[in-house]
Amino acid sequence: MGGLLTDARLAYRTHGSLAETRDNAILFPHMYSGTPASLDGWIGPGRPLDPERWFVICPGQFGNGVSSSPSNSSGEFPALTIGDDVAAQHRLVVGHLGVEKLELVVGFSMGAQQAYEWAVRFPEAVRRLAVFAGLARTTPANDLLVAVSAEALQTGGTLQHARFWAATGLSAEVFRKEEWRSAGFRSVDDLVTRLFEDDYGRFEAADLLCQLAKWRRADVSRHAAGDLGAALGSVSARTVVAAFSHDAWFPVADCAAEQRLVPNSEFGIVESPWGHYAWGMTRAETAQIESLLRDLLAT
Amino acid sequence: MGGLLTDARLAYRTHGSLAETRDNAILFPHMYSGTPASLDGWIGPGRPLDPERWFVICPGQFGNGVSSSPSNSSGEFPALTIGDDVAAQHRLVVGHLGVEKLELVVGFSMGAQQAYEWAVRFPEAVRRLAVFAGLARTTPANDLLVAVSAEALQTGGTLQHARFWAATGLSAEVFRKEEWRSAGFRSVDDLVTRLFEDDYGRFEAADLLCQLAKWRRADVSRHAAGDLGAALGSVSARTVVAAFSHDAWFPVADCAAEQRLVPNSEFGIVESPWGHYAWGMTRAETAQIESLLRDLLAT
Repeated sequence: MGGLLTDARLAYRTHGSLAETRDNAILFPHMYSGTPASLDGWIGPGRPLDPERWFVICPGQFGNGVSSSPSNSSGEFPALTIGDDVAAQHRLVVGHLGVEKLELVVGFSMGAQQAYEWAVRFPEAVRRLAVFAGLARTTPANDLLVAVSAEALQTGGTLQHARFWAATGLSAEVFRKEEWRSAGFRSVDDLVTRLFEDDYGRFEAADLLCQLAKWRRADVSRHAAGDLGAALGSVSARTVVAAFSHDAWFPVADCAAEQRLVPNSEFGIVESPWGHYAWGMTRAETAQIESLLRDLLAT
Repeated sequence: MGGLLTDARLAYRTHGSLAETRDNAILFPHMYSGTPASLDGWIGPGRPLDPERWFVICPGQFGNGVSSSPSNSSGEFPALTIGDDVAAQHRLVVGHLGVEKLELVVGFSMGAQQAYEWAVRFPEAVRRLAVFAGLARTTPANDLLVAVSAEALQTGGTLQHARFWAATGLSAEVFRKEEWRSAGFRSVDDLVTRLFEDDYGRFEAADLLCQLAKWRRADVSRHAAGDLGAALGSVSARTVVAAFSHDAWFPVADCAAEQRLVPNSEFGIVESPWGHYAWGMTRAETAQIESLLRDLLAT
């Protein structure tokens, strides 16, 4: 996009050690409203992302408040794309860490956007791809939700934006069956406060807007003259595309439509009432997600 | 609610003539962001709501800009409930028009809230009840959507609120399959402009907020000490409860849960990708809705 990010800083976090053969690296970019630390809970001994086996690199996307972001930069911050993130991550992974081939690139939501971008742009560098509840190209329906989310931020600030996410990010089943009880919340108010307001409230609106603008522009078909089928058809990674059963932001059918365009791919559904928030919400969702990762890493 | 609406005005519209036997009256309260004229398209010769057969009364809910509303009243406008609407409508129907028994009360969305209130509060006056995509008691999930809708109005005005509805009121299928084409829209922008921005833009924010506040408080269980089962169990009308298949605002399961509490009732589903906007969107939805009405009126 028009604009130059000078002295860009990419904050990242690693877990485990890179093997001398440099063939145990996993890249794990993060979601909207997260940082590399948001992913710590997925990495541990005995888990699919076991730091005793893998070298897990968690890069911080631009606009997350830790990597270069409106909040920590002077002057006008340029309009960025997911491609800018991935270009910087490629310099980190290949140039700085000396890893030529990633054993896995895995991401959820905006992390999935980055993972798709990696697999399309650098197919030779991605052996396996796992994308959860995210799209390679933002659909009109998804774009409308993101646009309205950004408007809530701009006119109402982070807390109004948080409540917008509470109203749209979960499924009605969470409320109908009071699923929030078993997830450790005391009431609907407690759920809205702790899961949404406290989370989004940590960030500056300008940083979140930077991320949302990237989200809206996400489109791997830029690498194939606008042909999504050609772009996804060029992915050589063994791929798992997974949708969350009740996710209004990334409906199953939209995720499945993209999966069918990826040659060496399988489709999975994570059953959960938690909508877009199924990502690690309770043990039930974590077990399904980790099972898909375990099977993919075993190939 | 605390507050007195002095000199309340209830605007209404009728179609057809009241029979001398006064046994052909139908009450048809309207939805959010509507007026009695919004219902004209449902009433006509050969239709289930045939003015040659029925005397159709369409009352305007308070806050619609025509009946008493913040925009046409001086001083502070009181906080109202759906019960206030129905109390005024009862005076119109029984006191002014001299109808003791309605052959049908039918409503969609906020119209359904008013129809449920009628059937619970005045069971002897309602012979048949048809409620589409609406609830007798607002659920926590629905309340959260309405609250966020109101926040969009307060901070961003009617157009931001319109876009919020565009993002949440339709199903993703409308966009995925470009269903908007067959409904007469030229593009997604055209859809958002004409179906949402033009519609909500006609109203004053204060009036819409008045309606949304009533929506949030809708609860027929007020008439049974908070016991929804007892309240709906007291309905004597022959009832059809219908949900729209892809409606995120009033999910099928939430509508069905209430239908099971109404003694003499049946459940219907209107299949449509149009989400909460299935109400008369295309001929396919209209045919399903009218079929349910026709069957109910034939009993």
